[in-house]
Amino acid sequence: MSIEYPVGPELEVTEWLNSEPLTLEDLRGRVVMIEAFQMLCPGCVAHGLPLAKRVADAFSSRHIAVIGLHSVFEHHEAQGTRAALAAFVHEYRIDFPIAIDAHSNERLPKTMTAYLMRGTPSLILLDHAGQIRMHEFGAVADLQLGAKIQSLIEERPIVKDVGTTDMELEHGSVCSSEGCDVMHR
Amino acid sequence: MSIEYPVGPELEVTEWLNSEPLTLEDLRGRVVMIEAFQMLCPGCVAHGLPLAKRVADAFSSRHIAVIGLHSVFEHHEAQGTRAALAAFVHEYRIDFPIAIDAHSNERLPKTMTAYLMRGTPSLILLDHAGQIRMHEFGAVADLQLGAKIQSLIEERPIVKDVGTTDMELEHGSVCSSEGCDVMHR
Amino acid sequence: MSIEYPVGPELEVTEWLNSEPLTLEDLRGRVVMIEAFQMLCPGCVAHGLPLAKRVADAFSSRHIAVIGLHSVFEHHEAQGTRAALAAFVHEYRIDFPIAIDAHSNERLPKTMTAYLMRGTPSLILLDHAGQIRMHEFGAVADLQLGAKIQSLIEERPIVKDVGTTDMELEHGSVCSSEGCDVMHR
Amino acid sequence: MSIEYPVGPELEVTEWLNSEPLTLEDLRGRVVMIEAFQMLCPGCVAHGLPLAKRVADAFSSRHIAVIGLHSVFEHHEAQGTRAALAAFVHEYRIDFPIAIDAHSNERLPKTMTAYLMRGTPSLILLDHAGQIRMHEFGAVADLQLGAKIQSLIEERPIVKDVGTTDMELEHGSVCSSEGCDVMHR
Repeated sequence: MSIEYPVGPELEVTEWLNSEPLTLEDLRGRVVMIEAFQMLCPGCVAHGLPLAKRVADAFSSRHIAVIGLHSVFEHHEAQGTRAALAAFVHEYRIDFPIAIDAHSNERLPKTMTAYLMRGTPSLILLDHAGQIRMHEFGAVADLQLGAKIQSLIEERPIVKDVGTTDMELEHGSVCSSEGCDVMHR
Repeated sequence: MSIEYPVGPELEVTEWLNSEPLTLEDLRGRVVMIEAFQMLCPGCVAHGLPLAKRVADAFSSRHIAVIGLHSVFEHHEAQGTRAALAAFVHEYRIDFPIAIDAHSNERLPKTMTAYLMRGTPSLILLDHAGQIRMHEFGAVADLQLGAKIQSLIEERPIVKDVGTTDMELEHGSVCSSEGCDVMHR
Repeated sequence: MSIEYPVGPELEVTEWLNSEPLTLEDLRGRVVMIEAFQMLCPGCVAHGLPLAKRVADAFSSRHIAVIGLHSVFEHHEAQGTRAALAAFVHEYRIDFPIAIDAHSNERLPKTMTAYLMRGTPSLILLDHAGQIRMHEFGAVADLQLGAKIQSLIEERPIVKDVGTTDMELEHGSVCSSEGCDVMHR
Repeated sequence: MSIEYPVGPELEVTEWLNSEPLTLEDLRGRVVMIEAFQMLCPGCVAHGLPLAKRVADAFSSRHIAVIGLHSVFEHHEAQGTRAALAAFVHEYRIDFPIAIDAHSNERLPKTMTAYLMRGTPSLILLDHAGQIRMHEFGAVADLQLGAKIQSLIEERPIVKDVGTTDMELEHGSVCSSEGCDVMHR
């Protein structure tokens, strides 16, 4: 009998770039890496997105699906449009699928809230069964990430029911070179 | 008798961030560094703007005025609004004056055209008399830039009449890690 | 039935720093990373040894043994003494075991020859059974190395007989920022 | 009347690499940059010597003479021989003149003592008259160094008498990524 991890809630997304619409359900059987970012978040531009590119290059897409999640929680007028994101994705040469996190009546977008993310960049790894196996805010080291991804790839796929998690977040956010934190301003 | 250099045309700017409106005329007597950029230009974010920050930190504002010039020539919908630029300037912690280059009926904004810039990032140095003494596209080395700025600071201020230059640019542009080039090459 | 890989020949070492003498035989059951270097090889100082440090920090010593192998094939008078190496190891804060590759009558030291290394830095990974599973010259990416190490750690240990390999190398060597290559190319 | 700075004492050197013997006296009229280093000092390899290379590349040798000064104050057996230094200079592709600081009966070599250096890397700038105008221990920023060198180059050469300075240094030293400090162990 194996340990049970929480299953990652389904993406709530308004639009996709670089891809037809995807669901986590569809991706069961592969490892999934979700790189949550904002286009005006310095830590995302300097660390998070380059790392996601390296993962997409280093591993076979048969084993891992890399998804960028544009989770805007500040400066909506500047980075909240599809056109702005499309320009960003073009200039930064990002070619993996990008999901636009759904706006909610709360301050944070829906998928970001569902995953209890602290801010951007956030890196989430789901295993074959869609369970959350890594959940990091800020910079992540390549060596450890490579090891973790490989470990998940080599696990046997296990099918199980999907649950959800809820959260409540304080308002206020701040960006540093490390990332954009939801919590404190 | 000294060599005559072309005098830099006056800035044509619609708005300023981090500053009251400035004119090059007002800045005569000081060296001026103009760092032309676009907020979605990877080479500007990685090289040009950090360099401008270092210059603003390393030299006294009595000797040199550092000005960021937001010269948008592509993705106007994404990076062409004051709100988008203000968010960018906030997140990247830029505190020197930022001028928004005036939109023209041509493809390139007005100051960019007047200075014959190839793309972004472009770095221009004006001497005490407002003459163009350095004009570089792409990455610039700190050591050489430090030497050039110091050399200009130590020159005796000379007052002279201001001329203008004109240019015509081919259309088409492309961004690389070096910068965003106006012309397809 | 699994694929057979060549078993790494036993280390031929004259002395150890930071450790009692070790044999590969003793390390069976753990993954072994051998980082071959020379203290005056720029690519080793800039890339190979920092990577070995990161591996030693990132993984448990119960799972992987990191060994530095000082394989001097040039400048023997400068880097060929135990005192020189001890000073280097001290100044560069290296705390994993360092083996001094045994001098031979040929130009290359014995372990370097036995492993058919092209130069320094060279990175070799042995699995639980001592089989050679990675053999790289020059810079290696953290992400891929992390994945490979994890993959080897998760394999079931298998015991088998130890074989040896032979080689013949051309003389002449050259160092670049990538590494020090045994053969003139 | 201009400010008087202390004149840099003459180099006390046992041998030169990459050059015929030089004296500071001979170099009067040019700016001189002395980069004091030890071949096993990590901060020298990572910062000091690459910086000296960039200076030698960026400025004309008619204006500035870049000199490496090998000032060994620890690990004499490992880095104290001409052969060890020659191998190092070869592998790290250093082509500016390298002086070997003269051994003394005290712990520190003679030129290092005469210049009151705290450790390695130390960077000293002498003006046209041989006066000490910059004296830094550890990492130095390119932008500021470029400005200082240019400032010295543009000064009018002034000839004056040469004085000397004396010092007494506590024993004990320690290397960090910043540099090797003479003072404290």
